[in-house]
Amino acid sequence: MKSFTEYLIFNVKNRRKFVNITPEIRKLVSKSKILEGLCLVNAMHITASVFINDNEIGLLNDYDRWLEELAPHEPTDQYDHNKTGEDNADAHLKRQIMGRETVVAITNGELDFGPWEQIFYGEFDGRRPKRVLVKIIGE
Amino acid sequence: MKSFTEYLIFNVKNRRKFVNITPEIRKLVSKSKILEGLCLVNAMHITASVFINDNEIGLLNDYDRWLEELAPHEPTDQYDHNKTGEDNADAHLKRQIMGRETVVAITNGELDFGPWEQIFYGEFDGRRPKRVLVKIIGE
Amino acid sequence: MKSFTEYLIFNVKNRRKFVNITPEIRKLVSKSKILEGLCLVNAMHITASVFINDNEIGLLNDYDRWLEELAPHEPTDQYDHNKTGEDNADAHLKRQIMGRETVVAITNGELDFGPWEQIFYGEFDGRRPKRVLVKIIGE
Repeated sequence: MKSFTEYLIFNVKNRRKFVNITPEIRKLVSKSKILEGLCLVNAMHITASVFINDNEIGLLNDYDRWLEELAPHEPTDQYDHNKTGEDNADAHLKRQIMGRETVVAITNGELDFGPWEQIFYGEFDGRRPKRVLVKIIGE
Repeated sequence: MKSFTEYLIFNVKNRRKFVNITPEIRKLVSKSKILEGLCLVNAMHITASVFINDNEIGLLNDYDRWLEELAPHEPTDQYDHNKTGEDNADAHLKRQIMGRETVVAITNGELDFGPWEQIFYGEFDGRRPKRVLVKIIGE
Repeated sequence: MKSFTEYLIFNVKNRRKFVNITPEIRKLVSKSKILEGLCLVNAMHITASVFINDNEIGLLNDYDRWLEELAPHEPTDQYDHNKTGEDNADAHLKRQIMGRETVVAITNGELDFGPWEQIFYGEFDGRRPKRVLVKIIGE
């Protein structure tokens, strides 16, 4: 069995943004030289997500608006967590909807994807560097 | 290490439906001859889910009604994504609640499940064939 | 390839509670003697979750209140599932938001975690013993 570990860093300028990280993940799959296995991609911070969906700007806007409806940022004092001095409780909630991680099959040395699958980093409390972990095991 | 890959195809007649795919997955686990490992089951399309819950028709109705409340199909012009000519933005949102994938332990050659766990394919924009990926690695 | 399987039991006194299970999982990772691999942790019951977020009591309260808004327990007769004699349909819905499972990278024999990542067991229909599965594969 082989294993491969790498960390990506994202420093999003705004509070919230979706970043298509598929090209970076493809490069790491290739670098790992693993032909058959599983690839875990996860946010290492708890106010960010990694998820798979469509790279269509209208949809990404829809996600942003929808998450703001389900877990609004304002008023910040509606959340107990923000009594700690933080203002990011909503980001912890949004991240639960979108998920922490994805596990992707590696087949013949490539991400085994359907036609529209793309991997996104979802930032809900940006303006500082955050890490994403990529772990691949297989042969 | 052994690996096993197979693709299932589902062609749901309605826009939305939940299909219990546990029997198909059990057959593939048996076919893989892998005794100890991990089994990834994921939707390859971004308007569908794979998730684990209870095979009880009332609950499946509750999920359907609840998802329609959280991310209604109508009016379709409330979503930017539908400006592309699609009418399935709600399906992309529903899929995020229910999830893309599940990872299940294989122990002694079987799905290592609690008493009520069943694997479902959740279709949110059906009426065409779509694929589910099953990838098992282990020994 | 090595594999390691263990089951944890939780018996939460209340209907709903979040329990930080990171110390138990760390012990099992150490016991497994696996240095590089993947660790699956999943609820084996369908009214409970395993997820990763922040060990901050205010945030855990926020989650509880938010989940009650998204999927209220009362009135119990709003759910078809409860016609079976159950009163826990809301717990099945809450569990979908928070998720069934997490997959964590094992690197150098440890959970490969960001600074604030902690693993929680989320109980939404407690007052009875329930199991969590830990499966680690790697080398």
